[in-house]
Amino acid sequence: EILEQVLSFFVPKSLAGRRVLITAGPTFEAIDPVRGITNLSSGRMGYAVARAARQAGAAVTLVSGPVGFPVPQGVDRINVRSALDMHAAVMARAAQSDIFIAVAAVADYRVANAAEHKLKKDHGGVPAIELIENPDILAEVAALPDGPFCVGFAAESRNLEDYAQAKRRKKNIPLIAGNLIQDGFGGDDNRLVLFDDNGSHPLTPASKEVLARQLIEHVVKLTGKQ
Amino acid sequence: EILEQVLSFFVPKSLAGRRVLITAGPTFEAIDPVRGITNLSSGRMGYAVARAARQAGAAVTLVSGPVGFPVPQGVDRINVRSALDMHAAVMARAAQSDIFIAVAAVADYRVANAAEHKLKKDHGGVPAIELIENPDILAEVAALPDGPFCVGFAAESRNLEDYAQAKRRKKNIPLIAGNLIQDGFGGDDNRLVLFDDNGSHPLTPASKEVLARQLIEHVVKLTGKQ
Repeated sequence: EILEQVLSFFVPKSLAGRRVLITAGPTFEAIDPVRGITNLSSGRMGYAVARAARQAGAAVTLVSGPVGFPVPQGVDRINVRSALDMHAAVMARAAQSDIFIAVAAVADYRVANAAEHKLKKDHGGVPAIELIENPDILAEVAALPDGPFCVGFAAESRNLEDYAQAKRRKKNIPLIAGNLIQDGFGGDDNRLVLFDDNGSHPLTPASKEVLARQLIEHVVKLTGKQ
Repeated sequence: EILEQVLSFFVPKSLAGRRVLITAGPTFEAIDPVRGITNLSSGRMGYAVARAARQAGAAVTLVSGPVGFPVPQGVDRINVRSALDMHAAVMARAAQSDIFIAVAAVADYRVANAAEHKLKKDHGGVPAIELIENPDILAEVAALPDGPFCVGFAAESRNLEDYAQAKRRKKNIPLIAGNLIQDGFGGDDNRLVLFDDNGSHPLTPASKEVLARQLIEHVVKLTGKQ
């Protein structure tokens, strides 16, 4: 905590006065009261981005899926579990935000037929899991009139540049940070490539803390001084 | 750590010389390289049982699904992710164990058609998740000739006694610790009922640490001194 304060002292306050909304972690889509569909996102990258934005002087709100981390210092955290919860928490705050950084690994689908009671193995054979599409939080925020500057994340297992640029164009967002799952998911380090209107900007592989600060610097560059 | 050593000093070494194999936490059944089916088990109860067994003098091996806890002092931990991994780790060690305590919330089913690459939302509509049954680790260990004394856990959302006793009879195991999901899953405290040949023994609601010690005392009572 003291280290964070000291580090923070040396970071230029380039986001002072800006409200930054960030999502982090996985979502958990219930199958029954105990089981659900989730993903291996640790939340580390999103929490690092929240700390970097805070250190740069922003007022940071972090909408976090289920992870074990403490609240980063000076950050307003809202805990959510499912993609629908995250959608509601983000949409309630997006219009009042200057910058939205969608780091969370949000489930594309939820379970349509979630059970109220724990499914029993002996009753009726293998259960069928019926999926329905979740709202696309980033695309919805990007489509807001006078909405925040939007930053997306793309975690892919292959074809990173193609997928990331396609995602950027389809959702009409100015900046995407792409990474290969095998490079970053769940670990301390990562390898990020930033995609914007000027093309691709590969960052030197580094800790998620360092990459988060570089991402924030890039956001500052693209959004200009206030 | 020092506290654990001090506590341990006052616990009778009633399991000295016994090898205790314990499972803890959830399992994670892959859908694709990042997504999977899991459950809300925190691993707290299983880790508490491992510490209690260790404090009672046992040589403890803990086969743990993905949780964020450090290795309990003096315990040999084996990290696994899926039910099949957990099955392999347990079956390799069960025959050499004196006591097996299955606390993990093992997935009943895994995904039959797990994808090698991340599933894309835009390709071919809603994915179908096809499930197949996982091996029943506790039943297999209980069926071993000269196998360990087996203890199961039943976490139910209703009808606890019926389900727990049915599970005990079906798998032919001497002791089941039952709890209602709403009482214990994910939290620090729990409410346990022990089911054995003599009927049901409700324990006073308490922390998982205290309940784990009472469970170990009950196991000692049923298995007798060496």
